[in-house]
Amino acid sequence: MDTNRNTPGGNQADRTAAPGPVLDPREQGAAGILAEQLAQGHVADAVERLNTLSPQESAAALALLPDDRAVEILDKPELDDPAEIVHFLPRDRAAVLLEGMSADRVADMLRDLEGTERAALVARLSAEMALAVQRLLSYPPRTAGSIMTTEFVSVPANWTVAQTLAHVRRVERTRETIYAIYVVEPRTRALVRAATMRRLITAEPGDFILSATRETEPVTVKPLTSREEVARLFRRHDLLAVPVVDDARRILGIVTVDDVLDAIVEEGTEDVQRFGGMEASDEPYTELGFGGMIRKRAGWLCALFLSEMLTASAMQHYEDALERAVVLTLFIPLIMSSGGNSGSQATSLLIRALALGELRLRDWWRVALRELPTGLTLGAILGTIGMLRILAWQEFGFFDYGEHWMLIALTVGTALVGIVTFGSLAGSMLPFILKRIGFDPASASAPFVATLVDVTGLVIYFSVASAILRGTLL
Amino acid sequence: MDTNRNTPGGNQADRTAAPGPVLDPREQGAAGILAEQLAQGHVADAVERLNTLSPQESAAALALLPDDRAVEILDKPELDDPAEIVHFLPRDRAAVLLEGMSADRVADMLRDLEGTERAALVARLSAEMALAVQRLLSYPPRTAGSIMTTEFVSVPANWTVAQTLAHVRRVERTRETIYAIYVVEPRTRALVRAATMRRLITAEPGDFILSATRETEPVTVKPLTSREEVARLFRRHDLLAVPVVDDARRILGIVTVDDVLDAIVEEGTEDVQRFGGMEASDEPYTELGFGGMIRKRAGWLCALFLSEMLTASAMQHYEDALERAVVLTLFIPLIMSSGGNSGSQATSLLIRALALGELRLRDWWRVALRELPTGLTLGAILGTIGMLRILAWQEFGFFDYGEHWMLIALTVGTALVGIVTFGSLAGSMLPFILKRIGFDPASASAPFVATLVDVTGLVIYFSVASAILRGTLL
Repeated sequence: MDTNRNTPGGNQADRTAAPGPVLDPREQGAAGILAEQLAQGHVADAVERLNTLSPQESAAALALLPDDRAVEILDKPELDDPAEIVHFLPRDRAAVLLEGMSADRVADMLRDLEGTERAALVARLSAEMALAVQRLLSYPPRTAGSIMTTEFVSVPANWTVAQTLAHVRRVERTRETIYAIYVVEPRTRALVRAATMRRLITAEPGDFILSATRETEPVTVKPLTSREEVARLFRRHDLLAVPVVDDARRILGIVTVDDVLDAIVEEGTEDVQRFGGMEASDEPYTELGFGGMIRKRAGWLCALFLSEMLTASAMQHYEDALERAVVLTLFIPLIMSSGGNSGSQATSLLIRALALGELRLRDWWRVALRELPTGLTLGAILGTIGMLRILAWQEFGFFDYGEHWMLIALTVGTALVGIVTFGSLAGSMLPFILKRIGFDPASASAPFVATLVDVTGLVIYFSVASAILRGTLL
Repeated sequence: MDTNRNTPGGNQADRTAAPGPVLDPREQGAAGILAEQLAQGHVADAVERLNTLSPQESAAALALLPDDRAVEILDKPELDDPAEIVHFLPRDRAAVLLEGMSADRVADMLRDLEGTERAALVARLSAEMALAVQRLLSYPPRTAGSIMTTEFVSVPANWTVAQTLAHVRRVERTRETIYAIYVVEPRTRALVRAATMRRLITAEPGDFILSATRETEPVTVKPLTSREEVARLFRRHDLLAVPVVDDARRILGIVTVDDVLDAIVEEGTEDVQRFGGMEASDEPYTELGFGGMIRKRAGWLCALFLSEMLTASAMQHYEDALERAVVLTLFIPLIMSSGGNSGSQATSLLIRALALGELRLRDWWRVALRELPTGLTLGAILGTIGMLRILAWQEFGFFDYGEHWMLIALTVGTALVGIVTFGSLAGSMLPFILKRIGFDPASASAPFVATLVDVTGLVIYFSVASAILRGTLL
């Protein structure tokens, strides 16, 4: 690995050595100009440029770049479809670049390649890299194992500060971070302490490395720890990296803060999309094809539609009442949406409180006890507004609700109290129920809650109506 | 500042010097035991422990801790209400601790104190700290200026690597990070380049510092750059810190990755809560009082309720049709919720795409052109299911929709295509419209979209019905 990352590789030197197969001779010129632009400036800008090109064009330009620059570009998680680009590179050149990349990015890329091509590339990697990649590929997505890198710095506990610094200087180029240094038991290689570069450069060179470590047990995670939990630990302890250890406390890799940032943003996107009532997608909106878009949306939409059909059944059940008092139908959309809205508010609050670890499953009754008075109060507010609306329209002659208009206003007001209370309670309990039966609480979406509340809302409305209007309208 | 952060302060030595005023003599024992526990282990654990106590108890225990540990604890953003705790500390002791803290945390804390107390504390701070804090307080919340720290490392461009390292060793204790070192023009103090500790420790000590910097212009932000934009830059360039510069490129402070992590998570919470249709709140669910909860939720709930009243007006408008064909009312909840659901999906997709910078305002027509066929397809799917449902119920005798049941099925199916298409279009355009008129696109909530779509949905439904059923039912 060292050899590749250290290759000074001038632009000139490399261009003559560039492999030809993928390049149409007429394109060499355009690719050459592009390569020259990509060789300068921020890597992020080069990545953005490549994202606007086809994989073939990108591969042609990358082939002309010095190794270290090409590796830097391929190593950025923001590069769209690196697997596609690598696919268009000559295999040997591709293997050289992969060897220089960080193992976690190589693993991500290989995931997207088909079996035979993946095997051909892995066969060309060093034994060390191939092993690291294979191990990373074995961890399920969204776990610490799947986002960790195997390129970290560790030193035996019997080294001095000076020895450690010399080692860091030697391996710096091939490590994702050198700011966290892990001190291991020399024989078992079990993690003992973590040192920071801060402490190291201010410590006495002759001291043992252990004297420059924190006295507390280092924070660690297991390879199967969820990335959400990893993110929580980073925030809690202001970490730049966390070691992933096995049961014998041997370090398997580290998760660095840049990967955690990406993971948090991805989780945020998924949370919002699932809350919007669709399958979550990591892919940017612009990348999602028409078919993919329909697949992501149709499933949930149909499921919600089928559940919502219960409202039609409920309405059929009350058909008699509807025929006798058509005036009741006027308020159905208003009343149902209020239940859905209050439920959606409660769900959004609870999803985040559970995701951030502010509440645990056992706190459900505490939440229920808070949502009950909250729902009653909110319902009373909306109920009052609703009644005033009916009174005002009747008084000012905008609409005639018939001779029993006061009873109708009372029905609407009372139903609103019941429905908003039920909405708040149902919306707040849903994330707990999902968590209890093993789902992600964030699968509770606003449309899901609304659907749940709608059917019950109709039942509440017609029950209230039949209690209040019996003998008059009904 | 150096003096405080460097105070070795043993637990014993400090306890005898602890100031008494706030301490009830009977409590000294309990506070002492607590202080002993707080002095050990992870700071994060100490913070969590204090969060379960009253501000008085916390202050009593903190007063017994060595300065550096107390500073470490107060410096953690996870500590609830540090201002309350400081309020119960003797002023002089409080000023000593504040002096040791990072300026950005002090500013956050002072924001929560009332005027006279704030002034009394600021008067006790060193001129340097007071100036830094006052400057931070002057930036609006959610900007780079408000989350930056003024404790960074910068060196003149004419220094050598060895000089720089010696300087870093000297100031390490008082700097939030030493991994990013900013090289400034010696005379104007304008930012020239950024160096990393990585490059520094591998560079030749005799070389000029400029030789150890990246050749590219450092990434910078302005004090009024939004924290969302700052987060985007961190992800794009895998940064650990970014300098905040004025128009003359003088560094005002730096934003570090731990503050960005917190900011991203806060933004995520706000996005979900606003999408759920309520005012966003940074406060954990458990901390939000009953009154605060009602305030956060009632405003939006009432606004949505008032808008949703338009559905009652729309229904009143179609009262004649309703009286003639009560069967139409059966499908109102089903049809309206489908519009709201498809709108909510589209909004959630677009909110994130805009927040992550995947799309810009000018891309609105591109999105509209994609949502149109998507909405038509989704509507056709739901429409087909809806028609099949009516046919099945009629065929199997579950319900009798009357002699014109096929026309009713056609009405429901056609209306669904129209409403789902309208929902997808309206849901996807709403975030663009909000952005265009200067609001955060994330203010578009699921209930907001549902309300928008509901009224139009009713109009579409009754228009389709009158077109298809004219001469038969209507």
